[in-house]
Amino acid sequence: MTVVRSTLPEEARRVSCEALQDTLVDLLGLSLIGKQAHWNVVGPRFRSVHFQLDEVVTAARTHADTVAERAAALGVPPDGRPETIAKVFALPAPDEGLLRDTEAVRVMTDALGTAVARLRERIDATEKADLVTQDLLISITADLEKQRWMFEADNGPDGT
Amino acid sequence: MTVVRSTLPEEARRVSCEALQDTLVDLLGLSLIGKQAHWNVVGPRFRSVHFQLDEVVTAARTHADTVAERAAALGVPPDGRPETIAKVFALPAPDEGLLRDTEAVRVMTDALGTAVARLRERIDATEKADLVTQDLLISITADLEKQRWMFEADNGPDGT
Amino acid sequence: MTVVRSTLPEEARRVSCEALQDTLVDLLGLSLIGKQAHWNVVGPRFRSVHFQLDEVVTAARTHADTVAERAAALGVPPDGRPETIAKVFALPAPDEGLLRDTEAVRVMTDALGTAVARLRERIDATEKADLVTQDLLISITADLEKQRWMFEADNGPDGT
Amino acid sequence: MTVVRSTLPEEARRVSCEALQDTLVDLLGLSLIGKQAHWNVVGPRFRSVHFQLDEVVTAARTHADTVAERAAALGVPPDGRPETIAKVFALPAPDEGLLRDTEAVRVMTDALGTAVARLRERIDATEKADLVTQDLLISITADLEKQRWMFEADNGPDGT
Amino acid sequence: MTVVRSTLPEEARRVSCEALQDTLVDLLGLSLIGKQAHWNVVGPRFRSVHFQLDEVVTAARTHADTVAERAAALGVPPDGRPETIAKVFALPAPDEGLLRDTEAVRVMTDALGTAVARLRERIDATEKADLVTQDLLISITADLEKQRWMFEADNGPDGT
Amino acid sequence: MTVVRSTLPEEARRVSCEALQDTLVDLLGLSLIGKQAHWNVVGPRFRSVHFQLDEVVTAARTHADTVAERAAALGVPPDGRPETIAKVFALPAPDEGLLRDTEAVRVMTDALGTAVARLRERIDATEKADLVTQDLLISITADLEKQRWMFEADNGPDGT
Amino acid sequence: MTVVRSTLPEEARRVSCEALQDTLVDLLGLSLIGKQAHWNVVGPRFRSVHFQLDEVVTAARTHADTVAERAAALGVPPDGRPETIAKVFALPAPDEGLLRDTEAVRVMTDALGTAVARLRERIDATEKADLVTQDLLISITADLEKQRWMFEADNGPDGT
Amino acid sequence: MTVVRSTLPEEARRVSCEALQDTLVDLLGLSLIGKQAHWNVVGPRFRSVHFQLDEVVTAARTHADTVAERAAALGVPPDGRPETIAKVFALPAPDEGLLRDTEAVRVMTDALGTAVARLRERIDATEKADLVTQDLLISITADLEKQRWMFEADNGPDGT
Amino acid sequence: MTVVRSTLPEEARRVSCEALQDTLVDLLGLSLIGKQAHWNVVGPRFRSVHFQLDEVVTAARTHADTVAERAAALGVPPDGRPETIAKVFALPAPDEGLLRDTEAVRVMTDALGTAVARLRERIDATEKADLVTQDLLISITADLEKQRWMFEADNGPDGT
Amino acid sequence: MTVVRSTLPEEARRVSCEALQDTLVDLLGLSLIGKQAHWNVVGPRFRSVHFQLDEVVTAARTHADTVAERAAALGVPPDGRPETIAKVFALPAPDEGLLRDTEAVRVMTDALGTAVARLRERIDATEKADLVTQDLLISITADLEKQRWMFEADNGPDGT
Amino acid sequence: MTVVRSTLPEEARRVSCEALQDTLVDLLGLSLIGKQAHWNVVGPRFRSVHFQLDEVVTAARTHADTVAERAAALGVPPDGRPETIAKVFALPAPDEGLLRDTEAVRVMTDALGTAVARLRERIDATEKADLVTQDLLISITADLEKQRWMFEADNGPDGT
Amino acid sequence: MTVVRSTLPEEARRVSCEALQDTLVDLLGLSLIGKQAHWNVVGPRFRSVHFQLDEVVTAARTHADTVAERAAALGVPPDGRPETIAKVFALPAPDEGLLRDTEAVRVMTDALGTAVARLRERIDATEKADLVTQDLLISITADLEKQRWMFEADNGPDGT
Repeated sequence: MTVVRSTLPEEARRVSCEALQDTLVDLLGLSLIGKQAHWNVVGPRFRSVHFQLDEVVTAARTHADTVAERAAALGVPPDGRPETIAKVFALPAPDEGLLRDTEAVRVMTDALGTAVARLRERIDATEKADLVTQDLLISITADLEKQRWMFEADNGPDGT
Repeated sequence: MTVVRSTLPEEARRVSCEALQDTLVDLLGLSLIGKQAHWNVVGPRFRSVHFQLDEVVTAARTHADTVAERAAALGVPPDGRPETIAKVFALPAPDEGLLRDTEAVRVMTDALGTAVARLRERIDATEKADLVTQDLLISITADLEKQRWMFEADNGPDGT
Repeated sequence: MTVVRSTLPEEARRVSCEALQDTLVDLLGLSLIGKQAHWNVVGPRFRSVHFQLDEVVTAARTHADTVAERAAALGVPPDGRPETIAKVFALPAPDEGLLRDTEAVRVMTDALGTAVARLRERIDATEKADLVTQDLLISITADLEKQRWMFEADNGPDGT
Repeated sequence: MTVVRSTLPEEARRVSCEALQDTLVDLLGLSLIGKQAHWNVVGPRFRSVHFQLDEVVTAARTHADTVAERAAALGVPPDGRPETIAKVFALPAPDEGLLRDTEAVRVMTDALGTAVARLRERIDATEKADLVTQDLLISITADLEKQRWMFEADNGPDGT
Repeated sequence: MTVVRSTLPEEARRVSCEALQDTLVDLLGLSLIGKQAHWNVVGPRFRSVHFQLDEVVTAARTHADTVAERAAALGVPPDGRPETIAKVFALPAPDEGLLRDTEAVRVMTDALGTAVARLRERIDATEKADLVTQDLLISITADLEKQRWMFEADNGPDGT
Repeated sequence: MTVVRSTLPEEARRVSCEALQDTLVDLLGLSLIGKQAHWNVVGPRFRSVHFQLDEVVTAARTHADTVAERAAALGVPPDGRPETIAKVFALPAPDEGLLRDTEAVRVMTDALGTAVARLRERIDATEKADLVTQDLLISITADLEKQRWMFEADNGPDGT
Repeated sequence: MTVVRSTLPEEARRVSCEALQDTLVDLLGLSLIGKQAHWNVVGPRFRSVHFQLDEVVTAARTHADTVAERAAALGVPPDGRPETIAKVFALPAPDEGLLRDTEAVRVMTDALGTAVARLRERIDATEKADLVTQDLLISITADLEKQRWMFEADNGPDGT
Repeated sequence: MTVVRSTLPEEARRVSCEALQDTLVDLLGLSLIGKQAHWNVVGPRFRSVHFQLDEVVTAARTHADTVAERAAALGVPPDGRPETIAKVFALPAPDEGLLRDTEAVRVMTDALGTAVARLRERIDATEKADLVTQDLLISITADLEKQRWMFEADNGPDGT
Repeated sequence: MTVVRSTLPEEARRVSCEALQDTLVDLLGLSLIGKQAHWNVVGPRFRSVHFQLDEVVTAARTHADTVAERAAALGVPPDGRPETIAKVFALPAPDEGLLRDTEAVRVMTDALGTAVARLRERIDATEKADLVTQDLLISITADLEKQRWMFEADNGPDGT
Repeated sequence: MTVVRSTLPEEARRVSCEALQDTLVDLLGLSLIGKQAHWNVVGPRFRSVHFQLDEVVTAARTHADTVAERAAALGVPPDGRPETIAKVFALPAPDEGLLRDTEAVRVMTDALGTAVARLRERIDATEKADLVTQDLLISITADLEKQRWMFEADNGPDGT
Repeated sequence: MTVVRSTLPEEARRVSCEALQDTLVDLLGLSLIGKQAHWNVVGPRFRSVHFQLDEVVTAARTHADTVAERAAALGVPPDGRPETIAKVFALPAPDEGLLRDTEAVRVMTDALGTAVARLRERIDATEKADLVTQDLLISITADLEKQRWMFEADNGPDGT
Repeated sequence: MTVVRSTLPEEARRVSCEALQDTLVDLLGLSLIGKQAHWNVVGPRFRSVHFQLDEVVTAARTHADTVAERAAALGVPPDGRPETIAKVFALPAPDEGLLRDTEAVRVMTDALGTAVARLRERIDATEKADLVTQDLLISITADLEKQRWMFEADNGPDGT
């Protein structure tokens, strides 16, 4: 069933949509683990971290929507089903149960740092394929790098 | 690591939090498959169904947050991690790829109908355990039953 | 022509939808007589009563919509046509023509009081049938009892 | 009980208020049958028609309020009680029960078309009596003609 | 010093601008006496009348602005200076000092009634001269007649 | 392909829709030349004129939409395609390239003045045909005459 | 002086209003000690706790208003005078003077925990008397349990 | 435990904070008795007085917050605990139970009048000590004097 | 007819209310001549001056309301009737007819400068009588001095 | 008449402004044909397509403004006059008269697809000339590709 | 070049504008060091301090604008150029590079404390010169003293 | 003290942060000289230029914040202290004292033009180092080029 004709050559479309699909899973996964930490964090920084996490979740959901609709617009159906996320999602994530605030900050710093590194590879990969997709990935990277800094600064000079 | 002392007796807490945890997975799963359909639906009702699905997603996300925070408030950490959803989620869901509008309507009607049936069991189960939790489940049921009707009416008298 | 399959057993559905249909007529009728009084009230309390009545009308319209859509969601088409209201509506109502402010306050107190008494019977009737419908009727009752108080307090200790 | 002295000569007032009273019943009736269709419509255009109908209802309620308050301002009490609407209302209306979307569109096109034809007669009738009342009827006609077009266009070139 | 060339023939312009200038003085005067009463009213209806008067003032100021800018647009400078208002303004007005609420209601009913009567003459006078100006006067009349009713209804069936 | 049945007799419809179609072209043309001047104006009044022009454009676009939808509601398809505007549009307009502020003010004063003169003819033409259409043209004229004054006053007593 | 006739049987009214009056004192007291802590808290969590306390105060004031107006609607005058609160209020509260942030968190956790325990008793007590009152108490309990969790999580796994 | 170093000399600080503490109790007390009257007022002016009282309460709460935070900023912990208010609050106040509207107006006029008289003494007392505190007390006095007038005018020329 | 008992000694009240009454007339007059200039200004600065004048009018109206209600709160009825303004108003004002922009700027600079000078005298006069009234006059002076600067800066270094 | 000195070398400016001018015509043309279809569409998807088209028009107008102001900022006057659009505009467009909904969807899909293809060429052309202009074209392309998908998905798997 | 004539005698103007100019530099400096700390703070209170600092910056910018425009209104041009700030600014400030949260809190407490002490001297200095300027300085002092408290309370009883 | 680990290789980070630090100083300087001109401009274009300057200041502050937080996110502390700005800022700037409007326009055109030229160099410099930083600089350039045009167009064809 083909519906949306691509505005890109076949190879460019393949490269772009692969980058978009991988980004989609990272972002949906981030939104889920962000909420997981939002609900389970405890400790003296509870309130700060609780609200900081909701900003990550809101950002991840918004970017996920943009990324998925861009794949759709290029004629490749995005896949964000639960089983796909569970199978593919590979960023650091919190364990089950309560989460000390310092640990929540550490795991989000790592998850966002890994997400950024993966996005930078996709920015390179899409340079030739589609500048429109690349531009979208650049703006998501800018946002996640800012989010990562806000967690990292929180743990401060002693890493605690 | 125990942090939040429960305001309920042990058994009541166990029953309530089990109902809340199961509801959490249903709602997070609904929000994911709702978005999946939102991105992949095609056909003459595309725009109607596309926006209707976003209302389901928004409702599911909001209810999931309330449900998870209630479990936390009762002293039991909620679990909404990707692997948990993938393992536990059991509502009807769309397949990978493009989705005809009639099929999107059908699958959402079924998913919402199943979710409602499960919620009604939990409403019974929590009657003795915790009226506050029960009241929350009642209001979620009201909302999902309305959403289900809006899809079912869409397929109309001939089921198409 | 059956479209919306019920999520309730047949008898529970019958009881719930009867309660909802009766409530619908009471609320639509209230919204019409509230407006009738809003337009025709005269006397030194004109402005107070004029605006108080509009709050009743707004509340009645909102609740009527919720009640009718719940019946629809349970698979029973609600009936709010002019002839149905005229035939079934049984609350106290103002006569044709101008309405002194004291009389407007009296008739609305009575109409709201009667509506509340009928709602309390339906709250009992739906307890077994459907807790979701019952919960909806409870919240409407809370609102109408507040509205009734605001009129009754207005006539004050001497009943004028 | 006379309260509001008219700013118009007796005959002009009689003609104007008759036009206003008849328009009031048409508009209140429209708001009731609009809601009736809003709740009971089914079929593939459900969502479009469901929301389109709410715009008719909102418009009809707003115009009804303006029309009734103008009659009051001219010293003639408007009559919008349930029994009056049931007795006088004469526009095409939906039957009891579920309503296919094509049928909902057809009945609303007819109801709005009839309402417009009656308004045009009243615009002629009030020309001599009261230009202020006439101007109000003109603006209501403009709005209902637009609403009628939006339903008629919906059934399209084949009338389905 | 002529700046704005008229879009109307000379006689039509003269008639229209005379009607507009007279209306301007009535409206500016209304806004001043409305505020005077707003500040000085006392009695059990103080709060109702105090706020009702502010609605008259807001309406009068808005209409005055529209009327003056229309005269300017037709090339005739409007005159709203204090001495002009004092010399020309001829509507009933409150005396100096405190004002019982019943008296405030009475004087505003009279002032608005007189303003309406004068507007109706200008509606006739501008029919031939300029339908655009006439339409503006019609809409101001509709608003002032509504305001007048809200005061008159306040004094109620016994005129108190 | 006839879809929307007219609520007017044939001749009245023809006259009304001709007036509406001609007005549509004037307004769409105004919105285009308003933007053209908005982008190209230079000189010490740049900022004032730049924003004043955007108000003309917003007004012209809004009125154009109303006018076109009224034609559609009367059963005559409006025509606002680029080639139609280019062929029919006959108001004064700026040349290509930069535009001194005094010249921008002059050309907009002329364009709006011509548009008003043409609207006044259509107000006469539709008096018999359709008071609803006439009323719409009257309100557009009021707005454009105000806009014209704001430009003409800007060039001031010396015409510069 | 009896004004508002009850819509409940005498005994049901007595039980409901006692529960409401006791809840009113708890909530007004909570709003006062919440502000007391809001002004006097010091320490590294100052800003987090300062704002968290304002959310408790806002919630307590809103619920107090609802509870008091429900008692009034049932015909029993609520009592929220300073001397009544001072005499009856029995929740844990901060001492005079500055308050370390850890201590503020501890005292609010205790105060909210006690308030919840007392509300749960009243939920039982009103089950037979008045489901409308019970439903109100249930929703207040849900909110206070969430507030309590947000403080308890703040002190974290080590209770500091 | 000293935390906040004062920016004022010791004596100036003592005088200012005494004035602030006394004002805090007056304002918190006003907010409580204002609500007490808001809930219990009855009579033909019910709605006017009911809403007027809520404006007093809102003002009193806002000023209380400013006053308490200023004391804290000067290094003296404010005291707004229930027992402190009950012991110190000395303004006229309503009795328990229902309150006729005329009586509510009278008691609020007296309470506000007494509060203003006490504030004027504190304005004198802080003139030398701290112009910043004095300025704050001046603006609170302006507001309470306006509130007092709105009640006094309500009882009107006959004091009823 | 005395209604509002003063919170000030007789002499202080007399001095304060005289200052307030004189300020009221200045402000109402300013609002009228500001509008007069707003409607009649022409020239290349038309748009700037037209909007600047509306800010003066809005400020003058707001301050006039505050000033009049303060007089009322002190028990002295303010007088803002047309004849009072015409008799007492003594600030520089524009002549009848069109007004060049440079002239509009000049006359407003003068009017605001004179108003400020008179306010400064009243600030001195009320120092002993009532610090609350003085504080109000101080804040009005700050605002009018800012408005005056914005006109004076407009005429620039050459006074044109 | 040269006013705005370019911040780019001559050749870079020429290339950039040619790309911007061509894009301007495409976008203004899209906004006109989008409105043309908005007014004339008929058929069962009328309401969906009617509103979808307004989103295209809003996007096209906003992008046209940005594109034209960028050309102006680079010192080259943009040209958006009616005759220029008519002469240069080359995207697929609807014919005169009523437009079936399927046909409206088809023509907009084609028009947006062609616009995107042309934008992609200009993205290449401006890479060397001006990254700022290129970035603007990239973001417009992203938006139009999304719009195109929303129409294409609407016609669904069978192209109808 | 003299443009704005002063409304104050020469000496009063000199004193007032000196106080305003010195305050301007303090506030602009505060806004710069506030942002410096906002960007460079690290440690467990990162988020709290980061946002608290933005409130100081917003307040400082707003007050700086008011202060500078008051100097301009008194006819003395304010000086807020980079070199002036660098030369004159004398409040405690953070060093280059990262800033521990405790240190950020300490340096802002000191900077605000010094700013307040200097403002208090200027409040004395302007008492005779200009009560309007003094009133402005009083309100800025109130705000900065509150900001200082919020930082000082943050470091808590142990000064950390 | 290293806290934030970079997501870039060392050399790329050095190049990016140098570009960001230089841009930060340009933007903070622009915001200060923009305000300086905002307060001191005089002449017939006062109001236009006064508000245009505030738009530059708002834009410069917003971009400065983004630029500084990006440097922080890359692990290099930004430096925006007063002495740094004074030492490094090198754009054209207004002198002390009053500023004629033509001169204000000229100096802002030059300052923005120089800022743009420097940004274009940094866009080249960061192309290899970090596309995310480059993209941020591109969007700031687009905005400043638009601001520059709005000033340059203001001086018009004759450069005055």
